[in-house]
Amino acid sequence: MSKKNAFYAQSGGVTAVINASACGVIEAARENQDQIGNVYAGHNGILGALREELIDVSLESAEAIAALRHTPSGAFGSCRYKLKSLEDNRAEYERLIEVFKAHDIGYFFYNGGGDSADTCLKISQLSETMGYPIQAIHIPKTVDNDLPLTDNCPGFGSVAKYVAVSTKEAAMDVASMCATSTKVFILEVMGRHAGWIAAAGALAQEQEGDAPHIILFPEIAFDKEKFLAKVQKTVDEKGYCVIVASEGAQYPDGTFLADAGSTDAFGHKQLGGVAPTLANMVKSELGLKYHWALADYLQRAARHIASATDVEQAYAVGRAAVEMAVAGKNAIMPAIIRGEGSEYSWSIAEAPLSEVANVEKFMPRDYISEDGFGITEAGRAYLLPLIQGEDYPPYKNGVPRYTTLKKQLVKKKLGTDFEA
Amino acid sequence: MSKKNAFYAQSGGVTAVINASACGVIEAARENQDQIGNVYAGHNGILGALREELIDVSLESAEAIAALRHTPSGAFGSCRYKLKSLEDNRAEYERLIEVFKAHDIGYFFYNGGGDSADTCLKISQLSETMGYPIQAIHIPKTVDNDLPLTDNCPGFGSVAKYVAVSTKEAAMDVASMCATSTKVFILEVMGRHAGWIAAAGALAQEQEGDAPHIILFPEIAFDKEKFLAKVQKTVDEKGYCVIVASEGAQYPDGTFLADAGSTDAFGHKQLGGVAPTLANMVKSELGLKYHWALADYLQRAARHIASATDVEQAYAVGRAAVEMAVAGKNAIMPAIIRGEGSEYSWSIAEAPLSEVANVEKFMPRDYISEDGFGITEAGRAYLLPLIQGEDYPPYKNGVPRYTTLKKQLVKKKLGTDFEA
Repeated sequence: MSKKNAFYAQSGGVTAVINASACGVIEAARENQDQIGNVYAGHNGILGALREELIDVSLESAEAIAALRHTPSGAFGSCRYKLKSLEDNRAEYERLIEVFKAHDIGYFFYNGGGDSADTCLKISQLSETMGYPIQAIHIPKTVDNDLPLTDNCPGFGSVAKYVAVSTKEAAMDVASMCATSTKVFILEVMGRHAGWIAAAGALAQEQEGDAPHIILFPEIAFDKEKFLAKVQKTVDEKGYCVIVASEGAQYPDGTFLADAGSTDAFGHKQLGGVAPTLANMVKSELGLKYHWALADYLQRAARHIASATDVEQAYAVGRAAVEMAVAGKNAIMPAIIRGEGSEYSWSIAEAPLSEVANVEKFMPRDYISEDGFGITEAGRAYLLPLIQGEDYPPYKNGVPRYTTLKKQLVKKKLGTDFEA
Repeated sequence: MSKKNAFYAQSGGVTAVINASACGVIEAARENQDQIGNVYAGHNGILGALREELIDVSLESAEAIAALRHTPSGAFGSCRYKLKSLEDNRAEYERLIEVFKAHDIGYFFYNGGGDSADTCLKISQLSETMGYPIQAIHIPKTVDNDLPLTDNCPGFGSVAKYVAVSTKEAAMDVASMCATSTKVFILEVMGRHAGWIAAAGALAQEQEGDAPHIILFPEIAFDKEKFLAKVQKTVDEKGYCVIVASEGAQYPDGTFLADAGSTDAFGHKQLGGVAPTLANMVKSELGLKYHWALADYLQRAARHIASATDVEQAYAVGRAAVEMAVAGKNAIMPAIIRGEGSEYSWSIAEAPLSEVANVEKFMPRDYISEDGFGITEAGRAYLLPLIQGEDYPPYKNGVPRYTTLKKQLVKKKLGTDFEA
């Protein structure tokens, strides 16, 4: 039996640890060369497959691959591109099969979030739907932590740690100057529909009453009067008020507090601007001096302060995907399962892709405090293990020494271009 | 001869390492107990002196003081409060002398920037102007790096490292997704009149052409056409463009690109909003998809990624201030002097306060590239040593274990309150 090659691609927004998953995939594939031939990585995700732009991973040294473990962003390029359904764009699937066939690809590893799980599911069905035998395994990745079945998503732990550390540091700054300066500080973080990232701000607290004093979740309808009352009360009592606001914070009717107006390739609205919106509210209604920060990409790229637990898990799901593939599995995702007991432990299990695709996991109501402005002990117990441990990258010239790959493309075998 | 007590206060915007200077002051004072009695810290800076709110530092353990070295923000509280001239508010000076006399204070250590150096100078002249004998030593601190005579200012190296690391990480994120997503990323950083912090973004570059592709300095008048042309050219050539913009970026007539409209106690305009202003420009004129981040307090509070060189220097100027005081000096500031030769070295010398107060040091033109959008080799040679080395704080529960002091106030001896 001739062994098949593997295709690996990164999809959607990148994270501080998606390359650690790539590292796990590639290292495990190299250890299973009896069953997996070469690994081809998609140049800019699935577009690399459609355009026959395949990066020859065999040309990358073991050192370079090992360094992926501490390198943020998507080393092979990622993309926001969602395959349409088979009915709506059969040509795309025919093209994929043409490329897979030309390069003898029998394993498909897709590293992404909920939208990507849907794409991966469609690929896993190609043997049924179009007679092309392929095993497709989805590798979970998303800072939003919104995938179902897995206890948490690789990428989230590191952004959570960044937000907890940054909130703690900025809050100390504000506290030390509030007597004569800024009274209200707002940090806007990612999280379009799920408030997991904002919730992580609460991990800055050492004891009750510590900053952040207010967290705004997309799951809790924004109540302006209640918000302003809490801000004023906190300033009266503490001298200052620290707020962590999710970019997806919204009014009861579902309108986002700030809507930048444009949409991405998945049809999601591009958000940004909750912090200045709240700041203006605080200034005009309460007359309090404010400052605000918008972490944007800084938070999801912050490999310098990555969670060691997150790095470990990202690497492990990459390896597990390959192990599942060589065991003959298809249409699944390695999921992180939390162990029972008070000591945190985790293992990896198989989750069926059909139950993962297009499902968003929101913050459970019992993780959010009754007043809607904080988290409960249950929420804290869930979040805290995910930010444990530091995993510092090596440094050179004062900045992290991240790796850059050769990214040499395989010679095209098809004479045709594909417009994608 | 009876030994005198010392007063120490933090002033103006806090930094990641101002407490390292406090640590240096207190540890050195404790080693010189033959000449210095107790150290009293101003609760919220100079306000603590005016209000007779003096923190009894002798109640803080050696461990707590040592932990100040890795704790950001102002542990004793800082403030934005500038003493008026003797002519304009003699009552303030009389009050200070009253408090100093009541608590037998003969040493005044003031930890701040240019405005604070001016205050410190006025205090140093109290023996001449009002007959109260006191030695006043200024300890340099400012993220803006705009004090004269000293090679650099403690606080700057750490914010510079934060900006370099963050720019590098965010740029990698953008690079990996630009094929289908964000083309232009803008990071807004501090720096009202001097572009030192923005310049540090360039330290993210490993080779020519690397991000950031554009840096906007307050020292270089903003030219919209030239800026947009450079953005478009960079996107055409690289696929994306990363911009680091100083909050103080301004038009040729001196108008700030973004002016939040309010002013602080020193009369400085509160800025913020250069990044969204530039983003709108890029979107409306070039039609390019953008993202932007505003680091705000996160940058100056980021002790988790402090420069080891900066921590070392901040501690050293604190110690040096005490050593200068016990040597009988007055009206000076310990300045950092860079050694000759290609290997970076530094030492501490005395700078006369009269030449420090109210002088701002801007980026020299020969540190800025000819097109005004980057730094030169001379600029890089100056900046690079300042971000060397990592000095990680200890962690507990996934976040840094920063110290909190008891901050117990000394019993007031004066029956009068002072409205400040």
